[in-house]
Amino acid sequence: MIKISHEIDLKNKCIRTDLAIELTDNKARIDDGNIKITDIKLSKKEAEKIGKKEGTYITIEYSDITDYENREKVKTVFVEELKKMIKKVEFKDEDICLIIGLGNEKSTPDSLGPLVIEKTLVTNHLYMYDSLEEGYKRVCKISPGVTGETGIETSDLIKETVNTIKPKLVIVIDALAASSIDRVNKTIQMTNAGINPGSGIGNKRKEISKESLKVPVIAVGVPTVVDAASIVNDTISYMYSHFSYQKTNYNNPKNKLMTNVNYLKYKSDKIDKADRQNLFGLLGTLSEEDTKKLIYEILNPIGYNLMVTPKEEDFIVQKLSELISEGINLTLHKKMSS
Amino acid sequence: MIKISHEIDLKNKCIRTDLAIELTDNKARIDDGNIKITDIKLSKKEAEKIGKKEGTYITIEYSDITDYENREKVKTVFVEELKKMIKKVEFKDEDICLIIGLGNEKSTPDSLGPLVIEKTLVTNHLYMYDSLEEGYKRVCKISPGVTGETGIETSDLIKETVNTIKPKLVIVIDALAASSIDRVNKTIQMTNAGINPGSGIGNKRKEISKESLKVPVIAVGVPTVVDAASIVNDTISYMYSHFSYQKTNYNNPKNKLMTNVNYLKYKSDKIDKADRQNLFGLLGTLSEEDTKKLIYEILNPIGYNLMVTPKEEDFIVQKLSELISEGINLTLHKKMSS
Amino acid sequence: MIKISHEIDLKNKCIRTDLAIELTDNKARIDDGNIKITDIKLSKKEAEKIGKKEGTYITIEYSDITDYENREKVKTVFVEELKKMIKKVEFKDEDICLIIGLGNEKSTPDSLGPLVIEKTLVTNHLYMYDSLEEGYKRVCKISPGVTGETGIETSDLIKETVNTIKPKLVIVIDALAASSIDRVNKTIQMTNAGINPGSGIGNKRKEISKESLKVPVIAVGVPTVVDAASIVNDTISYMYSHFSYQKTNYNNPKNKLMTNVNYLKYKSDKIDKADRQNLFGLLGTLSEEDTKKLIYEILNPIGYNLMVTPKEEDFIVQKLSELISEGINLTLHKKMSS
Amino acid sequence: MIKISHEIDLKNKCIRTDLAIELTDNKARIDDGNIKITDIKLSKKEAEKIGKKEGTYITIEYSDITDYENREKVKTVFVEELKKMIKKVEFKDEDICLIIGLGNEKSTPDSLGPLVIEKTLVTNHLYMYDSLEEGYKRVCKISPGVTGETGIETSDLIKETVNTIKPKLVIVIDALAASSIDRVNKTIQMTNAGINPGSGIGNKRKEISKESLKVPVIAVGVPTVVDAASIVNDTISYMYSHFSYQKTNYNNPKNKLMTNVNYLKYKSDKIDKADRQNLFGLLGTLSEEDTKKLIYEILNPIGYNLMVTPKEEDFIVQKLSELISEGINLTLHKKMSS
Repeated sequence: MIKISHEIDLKNKCIRTDLAIELTDNKARIDDGNIKITDIKLSKKEAEKIGKKEGTYITIEYSDITDYENREKVKTVFVEELKKMIKKVEFKDEDICLIIGLGNEKSTPDSLGPLVIEKTLVTNHLYMYDSLEEGYKRVCKISPGVTGETGIETSDLIKETVNTIKPKLVIVIDALAASSIDRVNKTIQMTNAGINPGSGIGNKRKEISKESLKVPVIAVGVPTVVDAASIVNDTISYMYSHFSYQKTNYNNPKNKLMTNVNYLKYKSDKIDKADRQNLFGLLGTLSEEDTKKLIYEILNPIGYNLMVTPKEEDFIVQKLSELISEGINLTLHKKMSS
Repeated sequence: MIKISHEIDLKNKCIRTDLAIELTDNKARIDDGNIKITDIKLSKKEAEKIGKKEGTYITIEYSDITDYENREKVKTVFVEELKKMIKKVEFKDEDICLIIGLGNEKSTPDSLGPLVIEKTLVTNHLYMYDSLEEGYKRVCKISPGVTGETGIETSDLIKETVNTIKPKLVIVIDALAASSIDRVNKTIQMTNAGINPGSGIGNKRKEISKESLKVPVIAVGVPTVVDAASIVNDTISYMYSHFSYQKTNYNNPKNKLMTNVNYLKYKSDKIDKADRQNLFGLLGTLSEEDTKKLIYEILNPIGYNLMVTPKEEDFIVQKLSELISEGINLTLHKKMSS
Repeated sequence: MIKISHEIDLKNKCIRTDLAIELTDNKARIDDGNIKITDIKLSKKEAEKIGKKEGTYITIEYSDITDYENREKVKTVFVEELKKMIKKVEFKDEDICLIIGLGNEKSTPDSLGPLVIEKTLVTNHLYMYDSLEEGYKRVCKISPGVTGETGIETSDLIKETVNTIKPKLVIVIDALAASSIDRVNKTIQMTNAGINPGSGIGNKRKEISKESLKVPVIAVGVPTVVDAASIVNDTISYMYSHFSYQKTNYNNPKNKLMTNVNYLKYKSDKIDKADRQNLFGLLGTLSEEDTKKLIYEILNPIGYNLMVTPKEEDFIVQKLSELISEGINLTLHKKMSS
Repeated sequence: MIKISHEIDLKNKCIRTDLAIELTDNKARIDDGNIKITDIKLSKKEAEKIGKKEGTYITIEYSDITDYENREKVKTVFVEELKKMIKKVEFKDEDICLIIGLGNEKSTPDSLGPLVIEKTLVTNHLYMYDSLEEGYKRVCKISPGVTGETGIETSDLIKETVNTIKPKLVIVIDALAASSIDRVNKTIQMTNAGINPGSGIGNKRKEISKESLKVPVIAVGVPTVVDAASIVNDTISYMYSHFSYQKTNYNNPKNKLMTNVNYLKYKSDKIDKADRQNLFGLLGTLSEEDTKKLIYEILNPIGYNLMVTPKEEDFIVQKLSELISEGINLTLHKKMSS
């Protein structure tokens, strides 16, 4: 007989996610059925346990932002939450805010940062020429590009830009990775914990945070990619839901006629241990954690565990960048929302 | 007890692929370890059975075209095969070849056609002005866009363009869908069967073929997307290979030390029925066909069966379009390869 | 002694302009100091004399559309005038309007047409799928590209598209040439006379008109280029104004202190013949027409008479295309302006 | 009577050019009829007199780089001259070269710098990961954007980047202004004098030079714009050539038949003072310098003195950026030219 769990290298970090919400169990603060807001506050100890950094993480989840009306609703929520985060920072009227768009503009799922930068209002040069109206903050922005394109360590470039401009607030935007395709493009994470090492969907980066820059940093991210293993893992958990639904409804003749039913909408008893083993054999006996590890163990050695993005990403990332850039403009400049 | 296969709607076409090679078992004509060429000739009857059209399908498989040298090798093979296909068509020196790039230039995985068009040499206007050198064919090209962008049925637009220009050969380039992520970006399919209805990675299209246009059509396609269900299905078959490898090597102490081994490189006895059931329960008793259907049944109703593309697609589709456009140029114009 | 006018080839068409207003003397119908609207109605005979086609030409002149408020004002006027033109055509609720953007999207001053197309609402595919709301017209659009890019005669492509779609109205957008830099980017010409042969800033084109397409055509154009000779010619006429102003004000000590005065704002007696000869010698004795011819005669043989565009054209052509596309949307779809 | 020269404000700097060659009378070092190379060495005193900075200016003039063969020839010359300039600087094998592309990528004539950056090989990150092959130098690159887009003073951003990377050589690429349309796109200026304040075709910039950066700077520029006044001024000098040619050839009956003759190709006696006054009156009595000033005086107050660019600039700037980026690659990396 083959024993599975034994072979798994427990030290391998097997979940690729930049979302704190996927690593914790916090309840939503607000959930109106359409938009869900969850606050996570991680102490240093809690953060280390899940490979994140100490700080506050606010997560906005929504179902769709390609629809105009829904996008406006999410934008309103985003502005409210961003204002609250900025309020906790000492940021006065004459202070400069530096907005940084991380990522590679030539790679669709990694272009969120540069696209937001393209659309964000910049005002600092007007201040320099004494022509900045009241009600506007001083804003600068950069897209530092990626090390593979510039040959320069991005975090060094950012550090020097901060030294030059001396902002009192840095807002950094980045595309993230999720561990479930259901969250891709459907989650905005805001945090004062900075961008973690190894985060982002591109190559490893050095930390960009209050500690490294000596300036408050608010990081805004949206997951735009997921890896193949997460897709498989999601599917296995849907298999359980599906069979659980089927079992409950098997003897209901009405349901026999229903194919294509959205079984996720039906609450049902969880599938029990015996059924799981019956259905999925040894696989069914594994914990969720071990199942993930198994999938990684199978896909990684053969180079199959690709990061993927929905085929409509070009369109969606445009809409996401509009939402975030307009949200930042409205948050920073009183005049624009009056 | 739950019976799985019973629930599956056998009429649902559950495999989303535009590649004939994924639906047949033909042996490769050439396989040098790096590049593989397979010929498939489908009679009307055979074609209907697998939802394709009658004709010849030539499939070139390769491991990587982001590397310059490898790309040149694949290009050479592509030119040879395209020349052979054109030879079977009556296409004389003064005849016009119309090149059509299907797809949406604003969606990365769907932009292969428009990108090839952008890079292909066009000469017919020089002929019109009496300044076309010898050794060059008369070539026109269009990117008709997608119906959702133009409001016009694309096949109608193409039909009228053909009526206007009166080409003797149409080469149509399109992005395709594969049913395995291993083939995404790594396969070129060429066929005289035209583009099938419902083919392509975008919305349904009317047929573009010799029958509909009354002109020989050579369709060149590369799969750039795969659906989530195919990823899961691939993974399950890798699970079997993985366990088969493990079983064979379990008592070999040397292997105990090897993690991250590429088990696909090791030939091993297939995992037997009993083991499959032991490992995967009922899931293990399903045929490959039924496994696929089950995954579709689970993912489709909940809207999870997204079409996805690798996150590096922007870069790869550029390289693919260079390969194909340069290949077409070299094939059509003698002067360019002399 | 050298005699100038003798040498001039009177047959050379020396004024490069696509604006009827530059070839006629019509008074403005409306002139509020900011926006000026002029109607020109050319009979066949009058049109031939100035190398244009029979029809009505409505010209909207304005000073600046890079400013948001001013752009909105011009848009309002454009919508009013376009509505009037469409009213004269039989165009019913179920009829199709085809919008055509002429020009080369890869050449900034020639990209107006393709940019308008990119931003115009298209609805005909919704009608095809029975999902077009009331208050919306059926609209299709194409950017046929330029012959040098496609190898296809653009007018043929358009003719066949019209045959396929059977629109009852064609709106064609094109970048034009002006004979004065003061009009570049600051004039919208609308006409039912179609696009003339040889018009446009690119290569010669075959006519696109009601006669050639058998469908009413409304052509909307904005001049984005001017040739070097027009710049010189403009300058010479400014020289006369300048000296006329100086002469009048020479003895006014106040004016001695003013340099950099906008002399165009001051009405003054025209400079008389003797002064002209004194100042400019033989050049001063030439009529406006002959001056232009002389400049062409000097610049053309040495290849100096380049077509040029303002260095800020990228930005301006974006704003122009927003104005025109939004204007067309508002004109065609009642629902959008309600 | 009106006196012209009196009114001219001699303090107005009236020639807008970034080319040292347009302000000096140096003879070409090499002139093969096709490509011309001129060396200018300005002492501090000489430089100040013409508003430039002390240093060596090497100017390569050519007739056309849209033709492939000609472009290759110009590239060869450019590489030779750039190598010579770099040789004069202490730049060792392990040293870093930072390449900076000034200008706005969204404005065609100002996009030369960013376009060169896009195409230049970057290697420093490979060095960082210990995978840089021999024969390659360490190269980083940035496009700092323009202050109006970023809100940051560009020279500050560059200074900090230099502090971070510590290059031993900076190559800066910028689009320039010429005072004659004949030089637009047809001249490459290389200098060790840096980029002067007020230089470039965009807004004023702070100096980027060896003095400001404490690192040797080689500036590479190509004029892509000219102002309207320069076009007029050029035309007036052509008028003189034209009449001089006509006068000489007036009694030659053969020439009577020639219209459209390229009179610039014929050497002829200069037109004498009496003829100039006869032809152009007072205008004819002005020196070249005073003529320029007059034109500026006429055009500037009415806002007519636009900077313009040829309408084909999109295409040409692409070819220019290929030439310069490939030239820089070949110059820096021995391996690439072997």
